[in-house]
Amino acid sequence: MPTIISSLGNDHVKRVVKLNSRRFRNKQQQTIVEGVREISAALQYGILPQEAYLCPALIQDPHAQKIATQLLENENKTSTKLFEVTPQVFQKIAYRGESGGILLIIPCKQQQLEDLHLGDPPFLAIIEGVEKPGNLGGILRTADAAGVDSVIVCNDQTQDSTDIYNPNVIRASLGALFSVPTISVDNGRLHNWLLRHNIKIIAATPAASKPYTDTDMSGPTAIVMGSEAYGLSNTWLENAHEQVTIPMFGTVDSLNLSVSTALLLYEAVRQRNKTVKTATKQ
Amino acid sequence: MPTIISSLGNDHVKRVVKLNSRRFRNKQQQTIVEGVREISAALQYGILPQEAYLCPALIQDPHAQKIATQLLENENKTSTKLFEVTPQVFQKIAYRGESGGILLIIPCKQQQLEDLHLGDPPFLAIIEGVEKPGNLGGILRTADAAGVDSVIVCNDQTQDSTDIYNPNVIRASLGALFSVPTISVDNGRLHNWLLRHNIKIIAATPAASKPYTDTDMSGPTAIVMGSEAYGLSNTWLENAHEQVTIPMFGTVDSLNLSVSTALLLYEAVRQRNKTVKTATKQ
Repeated sequence: MPTIISSLGNDHVKRVVKLNSRRFRNKQQQTIVEGVREISAALQYGILPQEAYLCPALIQDPHAQKIATQLLENENKTSTKLFEVTPQVFQKIAYRGESGGILLIIPCKQQQLEDLHLGDPPFLAIIEGVEKPGNLGGILRTADAAGVDSVIVCNDQTQDSTDIYNPNVIRASLGALFSVPTISVDNGRLHNWLLRHNIKIIAATPAASKPYTDTDMSGPTAIVMGSEAYGLSNTWLENAHEQVTIPMFGTVDSLNLSVSTALLLYEAVRQRNKTVKTATKQ
Repeated sequence: MPTIISSLGNDHVKRVVKLNSRRFRNKQQQTIVEGVREISAALQYGILPQEAYLCPALIQDPHAQKIATQLLENENKTSTKLFEVTPQVFQKIAYRGESGGILLIIPCKQQQLEDLHLGDPPFLAIIEGVEKPGNLGGILRTADAAGVDSVIVCNDQTQDSTDIYNPNVIRASLGALFSVPTISVDNGRLHNWLLRHNIKIIAATPAASKPYTDTDMSGPTAIVMGSEAYGLSNTWLENAHEQVTIPMFGTVDSLNLSVSTALLLYEAVRQRNKTVKTATKQ
């Protein structure tokens, strides 16, 4: 039987609210998942929640009902602690009050470069110093669709790396954070690793003259994008095998980072499918 | 000399705040522009503000200072009414308190299909029933970069058309609403107009089997995208010359509308540039 919580002052409630702070997430190595789609993705990809908060009155979506039933049925078989909360408590802990009546606390599982399963040929999306959780989430959603092997978030060692477990990243990714292996690593280690694996480094920068559609992405490819405000650091500009740009014919001076990443990833998809098709025909 | 406003209860202040409501904007045929980039774009594209609110204490960006100086210098030459407001008043009228210390009230100029200057060959982005102002703004930003002739927002006659003058559209477009001719029209009129101009209608839908990269976009092309929640109506699915899809290899079931629109627009850019280059070589 789940523990029932009806007080806003309950210690568990306070702790869930605190998990909205990056510092507390880092300390606890835990984060929050809410939203039926996002929770489904987490469970589907084998994440075992440490805690699950259920608000029966708000669980109306059939899919949410199914998830709640499973959590309740498995209560004694797993280590997930279940709590039943009132709508008032759920409103307090959930970012979106209407988010389906279920909220999970999950461990932040740090994946390592060495654990990655690379495709044949490898296909990676690398984002340096991404600032907005919404952009990283959007990139994960597109990267999932484009079939990349991994989204790698990197930084100078001197800078704070992006918090890939920010609940806003999970939300904006629609749960793709769980389906796409996502890694946070410093620039130096990542660059060495790419070289060791003979992966072509394609850096996107407005300063380049070659359009992104004119570079070969059919082999082992890493597409490297810079941050919204500062673009790519010299680490990537100097060490890229190729610098490419997205042609722009209007008056705005930049594209949204999530949009420009999508353009490069799907150009790779186009080129790779072409290769596959040609191979099939032969 | 600008009129000075220091009271939050001032009638002008109240009216600006009311312009955040769609109904009041429609009635007044006016909207709000804030943000240095957005204001620059509006002025650059010949929009004559009806009112300008300046908060000297907040005008720090050199570009904003230049705009303020020009507005003050032209005070007697144009019909723009100038107001000098306190930081407190500016905070109240501006969505983003830090938005550069200038806010404009501009007329909503409804453009017509018949006034459009079509490129050779024509290149149009059509969005049916777009729901989120942020998505429409993002599409305008990409459409500006891709060099489309126009972004056309369309709807069933029975539905409320999207409010292209929502201040959130202007913000998300970074001012591209002013550089890209943007039109709101009903489905039937638009479809007839496209046929009259021999423009190929390419409808994007997850139900199609042909990838968007396999259709010819080098001629007169209209790319038609559906709304976030409902996709395209039968008007477009049945009357499109071609239906295309964006291949997806992952687990999420859709791409963001702004991202998917960008992919189709830039595929057209790729094909068109290719044509240009080949022609040059011959």
